Amino acid sequence: MPLALTDLCRHPIVQAPMAGGPSGPELAAAVGEAGGLGHLAAGYKSVDAMREEIRELRGRTTAAFGVNLFMPQPSAGGAADAVAAYRDRLAPEAARLGVEFGDPDGSTDDAYEAKVDALLQERVPVVSFTFGCPSRAVLDALAEAGTRTVVTVTSPAEARAAQWSGADAVCVQGFEAGGHRGTHTDDPAEDGTGSPLGLLSLVAQVRETVQLPIIAAGGLMRGAQIAAVLAAGADMGQLGTAFLLCPESGASATHQQALTNPAYTRTAMTRAFSGRPARGLANRFLTEHSDHAPAAYPAVHYLTSPLRKAAAKAGDADGLHLWAGQGFRQIRKLPAGQLVRTLAGELAAAREALAGRAPQPAAGLPGAPFSARDTAHRP
Amino acid sequence: MPLALTDLCRHPIVQAPMAGGPSGPELAAAVGEAGGLGHLAAGYKSVDAMREEIRELRGRTTAAFGVNLFMPQPSAGGAADAVAAYRDRLAPEAARLGVEFGDPDGSTDDAYEAKVDALLQERVPVVSFTFGCPSRAVLDALAEAGTRTVVTVTSPAEARAAQWSGADAVCVQGFEAGGHRGTHTDDPAEDGTGSPLGLLSLVAQVRETVQLPIIAAGGLMRGAQIAAVLAAGADMGQLGTAFLLCPESGASATHQQALTNPAYTRTAMTRAFSGRPARGLANRFLTEHSDHAPAAYPAVHYLTSPLRKAAAKAGDADGLHLWAGQGFRQIRKLPAGQLVRTLAGELAAAREALAGRAPQPAAGLPGAPFSARDTAHRP
Repeated sequence: MPLALTDLCRHPIVQAPMAGGPSGPELAAAVGEAGGLGHLAAGYKSVDAMREEIRELRGRTTAAFGVNLFMPQPSAGGAADAVAAYRDRLAPEAARLGVEFGDPDGSTDDAYEAKVDALLQERVPVVSFTFGCPSRAVLDALAEAGTRTVVTVTSPAEARAAQWSGADAVCVQGFEAGGHRGTHTDDPAEDGTGSPLGLLSLVAQVRETVQLPIIAAGGLMRGAQIAAVLAAGADMGQLGTAFLLCPESGASATHQQALTNPAYTRTAMTRAFSGRPARGLANRFLTEHSDHAPAAYPAVHYLTSPLRKAAAKAGDADGLHLWAGQGFRQIRKLPAGQLVRTLAGELAAAREALAGRAPQPAAGLPGAPFSARDTAHRP
Repeated sequence: MPLALTDLCRHPIVQAPMAGGPSGPELAAAVGEAGGLGHLAAGYKSVDAMREEIRELRGRTTAAFGVNLFMPQPSAGGAADAVAAYRDRLAPEAARLGVEFGDPDGSTDDAYEAKVDALLQERVPVVSFTFGCPSRAVLDALAEAGTRTVVTVTSPAEARAAQWSGADAVCVQGFEAGGHRGTHTDDPAEDGTGSPLGLLSLVAQVRETVQLPIIAAGGLMRGAQIAAVLAAGADMGQLGTAFLLCPESGASATHQQALTNPAYTRTAMTRAFSGRPARGLANRFLTEHSDHAPAAYPAVHYLTSPLRKAAAKAGDADGLHLWAGQGFRQIRKLPAGQLVRTLAGELAAAREALAGRAPQPAAGLPGAPFSARDTAHRP
């Protein structure tokens, strides 16, 4: 019998792939062992490093897991002037940190074809894609290798493209999500308009657009929220920020400390660090440079990489990307396995509580004041 | 026995107050008769007009209902120059429509005190507030009159203020909601940052911040989404856009036609029409003027009012506010009572479906491809 994506793990809980360090084999193994679906992030890595992580993960657990790939991006050639102007703007930042800028003309394809070839050999359980939709040929080849494919989408139209191309599932990413938005193309005309869809709207719309299983992502921190997206039509919930303080997380100490620093009160969407919209804690770098950053990914990512590494090393949380979803305030510092079990318990409790609520008999007219008013709710 | 807010109606479904025409006694009565909680919108109305609507509603039904009030706004005195500059920018719009601008120095308190006095006499079941938090004296007086009070909030901090002041419940408004955002103060520093919280994040955070019952609002169009917010910790769901095409709705024909016009593909947040952030279909007026509109509510509301009325009358959907939430594509043209019953049925079905999902036995390793891949999901 073929196994559906949701049958690969005991709980409908996916650990988000977080490129750049946070999600490695140790985290994915702990999540898998606890009954969730762990995820490696191949983005920014070499093919060999990706294979090494898969090997290490398989040495740690027999649980299923996913590997996330970035789709190739268009060349930022036309944006060279804008990137140069942004570099000039950031010159004082580089001087202050005593580092040189990175080369904005780095790879735009993230070794995509070589990674796909390697994954076809590795026959991993799940491969997910971000920043676009793979060709039918790639999705078919992975299916023949026994791999389930997931395409990240941020709109009903992108979900339709994923289904059309033959994906096995969609990861539906709401506006609330931390890190990069997985839009298939980056459209600056939507910046600042407030148009990107919130998770609960997006899940309901995608549910009525495609027949594929839905993994819902964006701001989820509690099992009750996973119950919520399942009620709305999703099949699994995906959490990233929730795992950042786990001892198995590879997030930098600077990043981890910032997540519980009360000085950071909100997240914002920005191109300041990478050239593509991503959600992070609203720190100094983000606040000062967001309005000036060009839509030029990954050129800006490469350009600012040495600055961000230096800031992380120096413990300067105001100088680097502090990716975080809108629920970051609810983060818990737990071992990853314990976090998965806690989330699963909350999910079960929320499911039972919801099932227990029956429609009320109509009461009609006002009676005495709301009962709790004079007791618990008054300060 | 005192009746809780959630005991006033059979279904946990609130019809949102939509000021400016859409929600009058006919709509509220139909919703109440079907077991939901209808809502009158007193904003922009005279005290007498508000009382007349209450009288009419009480003649139509014995069901409970709410009345929504706007909180007084600070004078826009300091923004007079910005309002004048915006008027100059809009001069061609006014000339084209052949109308004069309205007086930006209209009332900033919307007759708040007189309306509160009238509602104390009317002893209505529920009074809700938007754009701020009433004083403890007002909330206490309403409680003594047997009225439950609801304060609209958009953040955990605003929810805390509502609890502190003695509100009976909070209406938690996510970023997805159509119409005006009910922020207690209007902060232009957050414009375009993507910081406003999505509904599912907000409900979970408010649930852990206050003990009050939560009404969740923002982009809800289906009963499954109401089940979702209940699972996340809310007590009721509130829907506005979903009711705009009901025959009992007072929305203009121009507004109603635009909601199903495929030319409008997205919503956006704008100050262009009123001076306060509100979500509407991204039409020409919104797209052209959003970047230039000052934070000056209600001055800009009064200024543009004659233009918007003329555009509505002329059937020019590109010239007026077309308030809509992010779920507008899922709108259904049904009588309001039938819509409430449909939503209640969907809610019950989603609740049962969620309860039926038990944790899966772990499967571990990849098997054959995802089962549905070669059947329903391929085009």
